[in-house]
Amino acid sequence: MTAAKGFTAAGIAAGIKENGNPDLALVVNTGPRRAAAGVFTSNRVKAAPVLWSEQVLKSGQVSAVVLNSGGANACTGPKGFQDTHATAEKVAEVLGRGAIEVAVCSTGLIGVLLPMDKLLPGVETAAAQLSEHGGEKAAIAIKTTDTVHKTSVVTKDGWTVGGMAKGAGMLAPGLATMLVVLTTDAALDNDVLDKALRAATRTTFDRVDSDGCMSTNDTVLLLASGSAEVTPEYDEFAEAVRQVCDDLGQQLIRDAEGASKDIRVEVINAATEDDAVEVGRSIARNNLLKCAIHGEDPNWGRVLSAIGTTKAAFEPDQLNVAINGVWVCKNGGVGEDRDKVDMRYREVHIVADLAAGSETATIWTNDLTADYVHENSAYSS
Amino acid sequence: MTAAKGFTAAGIAAGIKENGNPDLALVVNTGPRRAAAGVFTSNRVKAAPVLWSEQVLKSGQVSAVVLNSGGANACTGPKGFQDTHATAEKVAEVLGRGAIEVAVCSTGLIGVLLPMDKLLPGVETAAAQLSEHGGEKAAIAIKTTDTVHKTSVVTKDGWTVGGMAKGAGMLAPGLATMLVVLTTDAALDNDVLDKALRAATRTTFDRVDSDGCMSTNDTVLLLASGSAEVTPEYDEFAEAVRQVCDDLGQQLIRDAEGASKDIRVEVINAATEDDAVEVGRSIARNNLLKCAIHGEDPNWGRVLSAIGTTKAAFEPDQLNVAINGVWVCKNGGVGEDRDKVDMRYREVHIVADLAAGSETATIWTNDLTADYVHENSAYSS
Repeated sequence: MTAAKGFTAAGIAAGIKENGNPDLALVVNTGPRRAAAGVFTSNRVKAAPVLWSEQVLKSGQVSAVVLNSGGANACTGPKGFQDTHATAEKVAEVLGRGAIEVAVCSTGLIGVLLPMDKLLPGVETAAAQLSEHGGEKAAIAIKTTDTVHKTSVVTKDGWTVGGMAKGAGMLAPGLATMLVVLTTDAALDNDVLDKALRAATRTTFDRVDSDGCMSTNDTVLLLASGSAEVTPEYDEFAEAVRQVCDDLGQQLIRDAEGASKDIRVEVINAATEDDAVEVGRSIARNNLLKCAIHGEDPNWGRVLSAIGTTKAAFEPDQLNVAINGVWVCKNGGVGEDRDKVDMRYREVHIVADLAAGSETATIWTNDLTADYVHENSAYSS
Repeated sequence: MTAAKGFTAAGIAAGIKENGNPDLALVVNTGPRRAAAGVFTSNRVKAAPVLWSEQVLKSGQVSAVVLNSGGANACTGPKGFQDTHATAEKVAEVLGRGAIEVAVCSTGLIGVLLPMDKLLPGVETAAAQLSEHGGEKAAIAIKTTDTVHKTSVVTKDGWTVGGMAKGAGMLAPGLATMLVVLTTDAALDNDVLDKALRAATRTTFDRVDSDGCMSTNDTVLLLASGSAEVTPEYDEFAEAVRQVCDDLGQQLIRDAEGASKDIRVEVINAATEDDAVEVGRSIARNNLLKCAIHGEDPNWGRVLSAIGTTKAAFEPDQLNVAINGVWVCKNGGVGEDRDKVDMRYREVHIVADLAAGSETATIWTNDLTADYVHENSAYSS
């Protein structure tokens, strides 16, 4: 994230997490410009930091982002919102910026107030450690059940897009449970950032659907410092943002809670892109199919029963399904020998051919495992 | 099921299941009337027996129902439909009835043709064993992963409604994966049966949502023999049908694959019944919540995040949630002490108060367990 010029970052252990792990990150734009864009959860139950940051982003200007793990500050009422506000004020005071330019992100358990007596001193500690090499420490500090931290960088002619992400469970569209901060040193206005960010998230993070559960805290921010003194063409910039989002989305899927398989659900020959997404999501959310994939069982009947629950255009007797390259279902019935399907590897590729048009979409999901159940049976205790 | 006069039934092992368990059931209406109604899966990928039985029910007359476990005959193409047709023809021939009055139901793995060389002789064997006491044997023969067979009877003044059901996985609305045959000896026309059956399934089977997966084979049939020579009032009859459906639906939930908890999700104070159902279903399908309940963790934040994904009328800061009688969430935030929630028992009761009106709906679901994963990872292998 600090690979883009004009950004400093830090990650520290403020004591928000009881186990003493890093839990507070700070990202500061030190460049000549402070343009920014943001995309937030479409969950109607929004955490306090989401409500705050949505207001911050209305100005199109972000000076700093403060992120904490160890508590989502969601469903915490007026006190929770006051805590978010106080956090932004503290960052503003320490950095000498305006609070309304400080975005706040939180992740962790819903329904618990943050320990402000630890968080606010932590902001001072983090500010004292801000560094042009602090991106990795920041990425580590926002982990919850993530087993690895996630960063990504794309460097072009004289400018860079970097980013960090966290997220391992409650991964579903609109967005997945994730906090993502992207940075660029390109000199771009907030409306360009907004357009590029929305285009990128629509086909990347919004199509990561690990467990069908939508979070209250999802936030993806894109900050531009202008420090590279270069203004790239829109298409080139948008593609770089998309690549970083795609890479981070893939890292989220590969680290999803309890998963043993990464499943690429590719819907082809749909009448519309919306149809393709609807069908892909229905397949990706079918618990029975996800169990079958876990058992390395190419159970295409469960793919068809998932397709059948959608409103997409198709005829049941024209559906085709391939699993790892073997067309196990042809024309809605038995196709090639299912014993030919090799499912030993972590990535599983399902192709659903709707034979109804020429549109395509890919949804990423994971298998459903006993480990997922175990991890999520004990999360808040 | 044979508690209602004018019906005989049988259940035998025809050899469709490789393990030799009972797999073929026959139910015959021997009364003066043959009125019938049916409700079928809303999955657009429908099994051959569903396509056939939908045609049969158009006449409003059913003489007999033949049901097999050991194979769903879904996604089996024209040959699968020919097999269903041949099965109905065989029953008609043996009983001396018309094939168009023979409904066919199948359950088991999708995408596999039925062994007709075993099924057709099995029809003859079953017909030879038809008995007024054969209801239980029929209920046993339609089991798949069910651990127990399911029957229910309501007896009123001179007339009776009975029924049997199977279903343990792929339980979701429209309908749950189930085969259900209801019988009555009341003298009623098929339009009355249809009205009563649709009203009953709408608030019973359609609100059983064990794992969010909709089957290709769901069928609920109601057959009336007229043998009691009594025509009850509609309301009383409809209530009896609802009671039998409700009881069988509860039996399905209690026997759901791998489940350790039965979860009653009651949505209250909704603006509309549709809102209440949408919210109830969203809660019932939230894998993270289902894992938490499995872990006896009253994780109300996951209830709120599920409510937040719906389009129902509500304000986030007016939501209240009770788990087993303790209002753990009040006004969208922390409520009573979650440690007061006693979750030791199998039944868990979640109340979601939308504070937006006066409508109510109850959805039944189960927890998500490692046993569910294990059972469904190995089903077709």
